[in-house]
Amino acid sequence: MADPNTSPPLTRASVVAAHELIKPFVHHTPTLTNSTLTQLASTKRSREELTGTEWEGGEKGASSPKIRLFFKCENLQRVGAFKVRGAFHAIERLKKEPGWLAGGGAEKGVVTHSSGNHAQALSLAARTNGIPAYIVMPSISPPPKISATRGYGANVIFSGSTSAEREAVCAKVVEDTGARLVPPYDHPDIVLGQGTLGLELQEDAANLLTEADIDEKEGMSDKGQGGKCSFAAPVTKESRGLGGGNKKKRGLDIILAPCGGGGMLSGVALSCEGTGIRVFGCEPSFEGADDAKRGFESGRRVETVKTLTIADGLRTPLGKVPWGVIYERKLVEGFYSVTEEQIKLALRLVLERFKMVVEPSACVPLAVALYNEDFRSLVEREFGEQGANVGIVFSGGNLDLDVLAKIVSEARADVEKKE
Amino acid sequence: MADPNTSPPLTRASVVAAHELIKPFVHHTPTLTNSTLTQLASTKRSREELTGTEWEGGEKGASSPKIRLFFKCENLQRVGAFKVRGAFHAIERLKKEPGWLAGGGAEKGVVTHSSGNHAQALSLAARTNGIPAYIVMPSISPPPKISATRGYGANVIFSGSTSAEREAVCAKVVEDTGARLVPPYDHPDIVLGQGTLGLELQEDAANLLTEADIDEKEGMSDKGQGGKCSFAAPVTKESRGLGGGNKKKRGLDIILAPCGGGGMLSGVALSCEGTGIRVFGCEPSFEGADDAKRGFESGRRVETVKTLTIADGLRTPLGKVPWGVIYERKLVEGFYSVTEEQIKLALRLVLERFKMVVEPSACVPLAVALYNEDFRSLVEREFGEQGANVGIVFSGGNLDLDVLAKIVSEARADVEKKE
Repeated sequence: MADPNTSPPLTRASVVAAHELIKPFVHHTPTLTNSTLTQLASTKRSREELTGTEWEGGEKGASSPKIRLFFKCENLQRVGAFKVRGAFHAIERLKKEPGWLAGGGAEKGVVTHSSGNHAQALSLAARTNGIPAYIVMPSISPPPKISATRGYGANVIFSGSTSAEREAVCAKVVEDTGARLVPPYDHPDIVLGQGTLGLELQEDAANLLTEADIDEKEGMSDKGQGGKCSFAAPVTKESRGLGGGNKKKRGLDIILAPCGGGGMLSGVALSCEGTGIRVFGCEPSFEGADDAKRGFESGRRVETVKTLTIADGLRTPLGKVPWGVIYERKLVEGFYSVTEEQIKLALRLVLERFKMVVEPSACVPLAVALYNEDFRSLVEREFGEQGANVGIVFSGGNLDLDVLAKIVSEARADVEKKE
Repeated sequence: MADPNTSPPLTRASVVAAHELIKPFVHHTPTLTNSTLTQLASTKRSREELTGTEWEGGEKGASSPKIRLFFKCENLQRVGAFKVRGAFHAIERLKKEPGWLAGGGAEKGVVTHSSGNHAQALSLAARTNGIPAYIVMPSISPPPKISATRGYGANVIFSGSTSAEREAVCAKVVEDTGARLVPPYDHPDIVLGQGTLGLELQEDAANLLTEADIDEKEGMSDKGQGGKCSFAAPVTKESRGLGGGNKKKRGLDIILAPCGGGGMLSGVALSCEGTGIRVFGCEPSFEGADDAKRGFESGRRVETVKTLTIADGLRTPLGKVPWGVIYERKLVEGFYSVTEEQIKLALRLVLERFKMVVEPSACVPLAVALYNEDFRSLVEREFGEQGANVGIVFSGGNLDLDVLAKIVSEARADVEKKE
């Protein structure tokens, strides 16, 4: 990783510059709408649905927000997750670090400890640049993850499974090879790289909303002509599903992003600086996985988390660099959390109604929009009849199909149990 | 349904006209590429993989085609399948039939027999136009399909499950209500409506290939700027995955489309008339589901089929109108079929590597590209080193999640059995 002191400042302009650097290597993933999910998000929940939640028996009952959803499909990104953005950016920045290339940096390579999406992302970015990658993984990692990482040409090195054991092995690799450490989230270059998805989401949503305006003017007569590829789910009257009389907005009002280590959330927040778009972090509540929320609300970063939430990308505590952007600079407005059952229900909805495969971590923001009454009443209160255009980050799509099959049957069982 | 005698002629120009009529109501779904699947399609299969197939022990061994895949994602279409194209077109045409509106047609409504995607598509198209829809379904239809159709506001009427029983109930509805029959595929207006997806696929693929060219010229420096929304998987050097030295083509060479009743296949064939794009139909081979292939090769349409192939959208025999386009006018060049196991393996790959939910019927063309050596050797023979740009129609994404879970575990079991 480039020395953080050489990193560009954490600003929107630096996210734009990062975007220029990585564009040749990553996909501009589609931003899609879905009328069923938008309609569901804009439907008041029944008293029954609130039973057993913290909002049960509230004075006012459930809220009635109007929410138009825009999904940034990073599950269709290379290696199946947004992590390639930060990884490619980290390597581009390294190449620009004075002396790194001249000192044989490209021959020495890069190293990280991860068994998840960051491992595959860094492996791909390294291979693309002809640089060796060393990936430290717990020896108990699932064989498909090991072989996927090796499939990208990385050298996989095993360690124990505590973070102390992994870090020790990492340090040894650095000593032996001179490879540079590329951490998964706690570095400005990673933050800036991940933030690039926020720029695309803003641009895509504005385009979709503009097309929707044209539709209305021209009596919906020709919504395909404007863009070269006005793809799936351009916002039609029906998909807005919110009746007449709404004055259309030209862009997003809110972005909901998942928060694990916070690299992506803080990058997205930077991408929104000065735009007026409000950014919120979304976490699982299970076994204290809502560490960022607790830290944000108490003013003290929570440094350790032990949770086995199904949203396995969100089990890590918030990093220091992200904390600076999120809390100290207040570029994130707040956090919302959801239960395991709500994550599974959201995943099931995405499979069934959106025809997309997403990992559980990616479903957390949608679950917030559908089921978190604190968020929903905020939208009702502050956006009223006009409603809010809400960007949802589908962060990735990597999950074992057997796990998928299990979640599908569990979510079904949960629903049946309730009926 | 409008009287077929009043339908426009079956030509590419009529498909273009149909597209103008239905654009306000349907999505221009995205056309996506996927580097893993393109690479897999361009990889010679091992001797082992051919064991137990009709190509086992062939003199030359497996073929070595170069295949670049372009997926038309109609699983992201409204109601989750291409069928809305034909349904909306049928109603637009009805509205233009002299005397239909004046004679109270819109009050009398439309009727069909279907428990599948056509039922939901017609219900949506009718509701959008404020027209009543009557859907005749076997009383043994799965409850989720019944409630989904009712969810679009249709009147569901039950019948026995033989086609004679269903037609009798349909005739009764026509008699009682004056509603107009809208058949699922055997009508020119349906054929022309479904064919519109072929126009979009041609246009999208040409755009993606042009962007790829620009990339190459400019050293891949900026592939995002050209289009308003150059989404997921623009064709990068790596995603073409075919090494250097290929002269890039400006458009598709081939389209592979699934074939059930043949409404969509024949429409797509019309959309390609005069373009030089070669169109092939794809079917399951299980229990004689390859009726179009057998008919095409013997010169006699097969009129009855009894199969329980997992590709449940392809269990119907080829209709008369499609046969005229496909066989008599020779706008389809030929047919390929695949086994149940190959369909399941393709579905599993799409879930795992493409992060998309597609129904088994939609996986049949991909299975042909990956596993059918007759098709693959044709590509090797006729396109050589340059390779072929192959459009794949992902026709729909509607399947019960429990079925999905079952297929996932079966495909896994099949693979393990082989190892």
